[in-house]
Amino acid sequence: MRITTLAGGIGGARFLRGLRDGLAAGTGAAEITVIGNTADDIDLFGLRICPDLDSVMYTLGGGIDEDRGWGRADEGWRAKDELAAYGYGPDWFGLGDRDLATHLIRTQLRTAGYPLHEITAALCRRWEPGVVLLPMTDDRVETHVVVPDGDGTRAIHFQEWWVRHRAALPAVAFHQIGAESARPAPGVLEAIREADVILLPPSNPVVSIGAILSVPGIRDALLAAHAPIIGVSPIIGGAPVRGMADACLSAIGVPTDAAAVATHYGARSASGILDGWLVDTVDAEQAADLPGHGIAVAARDLLMADPARTQDLALATLALAQELRR
Amino acid sequence: MRITTLAGGIGGARFLRGLRDGLAAGTGAAEITVIGNTADDIDLFGLRICPDLDSVMYTLGGGIDEDRGWGRADEGWRAKDELAAYGYGPDWFGLGDRDLATHLIRTQLRTAGYPLHEITAALCRRWEPGVVLLPMTDDRVETHVVVPDGDGTRAIHFQEWWVRHRAALPAVAFHQIGAESARPAPGVLEAIREADVILLPPSNPVVSIGAILSVPGIRDALLAAHAPIIGVSPIIGGAPVRGMADACLSAIGVPTDAAAVATHYGARSASGILDGWLVDTVDAEQAADLPGHGIAVAARDLLMADPARTQDLALATLALAQELRR
Repeated sequence: MRITTLAGGIGGARFLRGLRDGLAAGTGAAEITVIGNTADDIDLFGLRICPDLDSVMYTLGGGIDEDRGWGRADEGWRAKDELAAYGYGPDWFGLGDRDLATHLIRTQLRTAGYPLHEITAALCRRWEPGVVLLPMTDDRVETHVVVPDGDGTRAIHFQEWWVRHRAALPAVAFHQIGAESARPAPGVLEAIREADVILLPPSNPVVSIGAILSVPGIRDALLAAHAPIIGVSPIIGGAPVRGMADACLSAIGVPTDAAAVATHYGARSASGILDGWLVDTVDAEQAADLPGHGIAVAARDLLMADPARTQDLALATLALAQELRR
Repeated sequence: MRITTLAGGIGGARFLRGLRDGLAAGTGAAEITVIGNTADDIDLFGLRICPDLDSVMYTLGGGIDEDRGWGRADEGWRAKDELAAYGYGPDWFGLGDRDLATHLIRTQLRTAGYPLHEITAALCRRWEPGVVLLPMTDDRVETHVVVPDGDGTRAIHFQEWWVRHRAALPAVAFHQIGAESARPAPGVLEAIREADVILLPPSNPVVSIGAILSVPGIRDALLAAHAPIIGVSPIIGGAPVRGMADACLSAIGVPTDAAAVATHYGARSASGILDGWLVDTVDAEQAADLPGHGIAVAARDLLMADPARTQDLALATLALAQELRR
């Protein structure tokens, strides 16, 4: 079975680990291809940093800090402290000493001319994530956030909004700078076309999944794919499970609830990207109208609180896909 | 009093600290300008690393690891371990987590187009070394070491020879690649011309002082300087005080003894660069012939074992200069 997923950072990474491990524990041999968001990427201190790709790679490769959910376990902060002591560059980004090695290698390979998908593959040779991890594009795409500034607005990098301001500045709009001329990385469209199942993990609908969809060709490929597309709600009981998806959803006029996100994605029968939607059991009633609009629904405990529950919900997406295929 | 010194790494840095602190403890206000060796510089992991400039900056700025003599105190090695775990790049270079911040800033400023002397000044604004630290040149000069290889030879970067092989491969020759077209950094020739005293600390005569002298114009400026030039022997009792100067001296046919190094530098009266030479008391007898060849000699305990002794020997160079001026 060929499974293709889109993925942002922490939520996507945990879902993927559950999927991989749930499949490995069962009978199903599967090839999993992950199309990772790169619009969160940022250049800091001359280094190219890909937070979402790294979260997936570290989580699936066993290097993640489980408590923070991002960055490396047994991390140190000496380099970051020193950069701050020099008073040089932003001090709000969590640039760990171990993590630095990944960025140094990526930056050097970029300088040598390698495209991001090859660099990602090279880094994954160490981590052996058990999936094929592809960046959504080799081209530069950057999410900028338009925020109020006096009487007007200004645009800041997504990381500045997310990490420095903790999404506390009201977002007027999100722009994926560069997206209009970006091309899907090699393998991305093929993975969508040839998949038996396509999954959207509970990643941020706006700045993770939305950013991936901003790359021309990807949305069309999803619409045309023969595989069922099953999404997992990132919202439980009207609140984001993790992160600050509500601050993103409100900027695009989508209520923070499980059904509204599904409606935002839309049913494939109405030129959207969803065939099925997994909601938490607390949201089953609220999602009752979705099947009437072409989106099948299943309800499950969606809190990825431990490996067993995470595997259970990941496998539930496959069960829903199986139902739809019948 | 304007004092100008050449300097390599650890030995030069400790001498300079003694000089600065000895002067501060006494009555003499002095402006000290240090012309640092940059031929040990190396690019690793896309970072520009200047070991000798950093040793001077960290030592005078209070950031040095006193036991190792190089790199930062309270250093960590997570990034280095990770680079090795990726199997990427050389694993023999001591790239500490704190140290990395210096290299990141330097590299980013270089990429932005700043010359090394301005970058060095920017880094020194944090460290306040109490001296003006100048690179010998803004241009790229690299010491390569010719070593045996099968029936022939090959050239390796000085750091590979020094750090990786611990100078255990016999050195056939040293080449300062790029020196012929390098220009002294702004301020270097002026500092030599306008000095009241010029000092050569007990740095490596071949790959530190020799490398600085390889930059066209510097040797001529020393020859023409009105200030007396006083050197400190890096050899005590036939052995280098620190480092592996003997392996360098033998490659250029100079015996590892205090008098031979002075003769190698030569008296200014014979187109060399020395007016005076400080030797250890154990070498006083051996150096007895030098005055007859135009090099005044003073003998002192040269082991920089503690701050008091280091200050004493540093001030002794000034006393010898004073004698020569009379």
